[in-house]
Amino acid sequence: MSRIEEFTVCVVGVGQIGGSFALALKEQGIGRKIIGVDKEEVVSKTKIKDLALQAMPDLESAIRESDFIFLSTPVLTILDLLPRIATWMRPEAILLDSGSTKKRICLLMRKHPERILIGGHPMTGTEKEGFDAATPSLFKNKIFSFTFPTGKSREGKGTVLKILEKIGSLPLEIDAERHDEIVSLTSHLPYVLSLALSHLARDFMEKEPLLGDFIAGGFLGASRLSLTPVEMGRGILATNSSRILQMMEAFSKSLKRIKSLIKDDNAILDFLTATRHFQTDLKEKR
Amino acid sequence: MSRIEEFTVCVVGVGQIGGSFALALKEQGIGRKIIGVDKEEVVSKTKIKDLALQAMPDLESAIRESDFIFLSTPVLTILDLLPRIATWMRPEAILLDSGSTKKRICLLMRKHPERILIGGHPMTGTEKEGFDAATPSLFKNKIFSFTFPTGKSREGKGTVLKILEKIGSLPLEIDAERHDEIVSLTSHLPYVLSLALSHLARDFMEKEPLLGDFIAGGFLGASRLSLTPVEMGRGILATNSSRILQMMEAFSKSLKRIKSLIKDDNAILDFLTATRHFQTDLKEKR
Repeated sequence: MSRIEEFTVCVVGVGQIGGSFALALKEQGIGRKIIGVDKEEVVSKTKIKDLALQAMPDLESAIRESDFIFLSTPVLTILDLLPRIATWMRPEAILLDSGSTKKRICLLMRKHPERILIGGHPMTGTEKEGFDAATPSLFKNKIFSFTFPTGKSREGKGTVLKILEKIGSLPLEIDAERHDEIVSLTSHLPYVLSLALSHLARDFMEKEPLLGDFIAGGFLGASRLSLTPVEMGRGILATNSSRILQMMEAFSKSLKRIKSLIKDDNAILDFLTATRHFQTDLKEKR
Repeated sequence: MSRIEEFTVCVVGVGQIGGSFALALKEQGIGRKIIGVDKEEVVSKTKIKDLALQAMPDLESAIRESDFIFLSTPVLTILDLLPRIATWMRPEAILLDSGSTKKRICLLMRKHPERILIGGHPMTGTEKEGFDAATPSLFKNKIFSFTFPTGKSREGKGTVLKILEKIGSLPLEIDAERHDEIVSLTSHLPYVLSLALSHLARDFMEKEPLLGDFIAGGFLGASRLSLTPVEMGRGILATNSSRILQMMEAFSKSLKRIKSLIKDDNAILDFLTATRHFQTDLKEKR
């Protein structure tokens, strides 16, 4: 295996995550050549210094020459591309994806036990879309979870850890099921709540024209995840639906608990104090 | 009535809102003298240039000499202080409050039909607490809603409008019921959702030690309102509970709608697209 500085790297999907990954590699001197591959319309309007951009029809040739592949498209596109990419990969090449859910992707990876295919998920990114929102510091001090679906995939561990550490992220190994359950609470439920809140406001606004005047930072913060790119959200809901539905049930119970407390001033005071304390701790640990 | 530049102003509660109001008046040259009144422990640790700070035992004397009173404590404290303040006020003095809910406060104001008592609520502020989070620009380009509970209170309209416009806010007259219904959706529901989300995470963390590692911007944004000062949240829940409970019901229906869509890929795609579009519009109008 050549040194990571000498790698030819292919980043598939140069949106916020893939674009930031490419920029971070550049900054760290990883990769002699970095090829970004994306849809024709993305490639035609994106200009990235020192980064070779190619449109999707060239994906096969880009994969065939790469030592390291970063697959950073929405989940459903990952599931679509992965089987073909696996057949095109050089035997010693390593693939790491950045999809929001891991179980379905890792199941698919297992169908290619001869390839080094590693599941990954960086705990970073905003609701902003596209390369314009990319920055080389996106991964700094952020957890980058990774999952080995096969014995063969573990052969890539040393290289992946070296790269993740170089770009400043905090690697964390976790199995796919556990990952998907945790993020159903930490990412997917907040997304769904945000959607439900936006949807409710949209309905309400039809009969209350002043509603928009009362939208302030609190509402915008709570509903911000509704701005998640549609394809990304769609992939999350399609590939983690049962856990998300369970988490929505658990949330409804949590909401019911608050309902029962609202009319009890002493109980609500304790609840608000404990919850605020928890949230303060959570924020300070970031 | 003297000119607003000559006013003696009393700001009761020099937290983020009251402190910012005092700073904004200073900046605009409103008020010959501004007296900030707060709890002993707040006054002892707060230093504000050119602002006379007095502890609560001096409230009566401060009110008795004031032309304009800004009552910016949490709602329950407003309800507690208002009857006494009304008896101490000079006949021509004007009081404006900044409480998060308006119906209960305006009902109480109606019990003093001889006083100029005006309900107010600025659509600004963050979850941060205290004078340290105050800034004179807090009201700039933000809606400041106001409500006249009595015929007498309308005598203060010209002065209040002049002050609100001077500090850069956008005054909006609205009746108390309508205000409380709108903010039950735009502010109070997001607060409750945030609490329920934090509460759920707190429970979940007891059996999943890795949860904290997966907390990122999405979760923190969606649960940020749990950091609302406890006394402020308590007052909101205590004085707008029936509307908040209704809004929680409506939210549950909105959540159910998403549940029914999750397994239908075409329907969810339309829903995500429409919701994202609405949210983008909402954000751009801010």
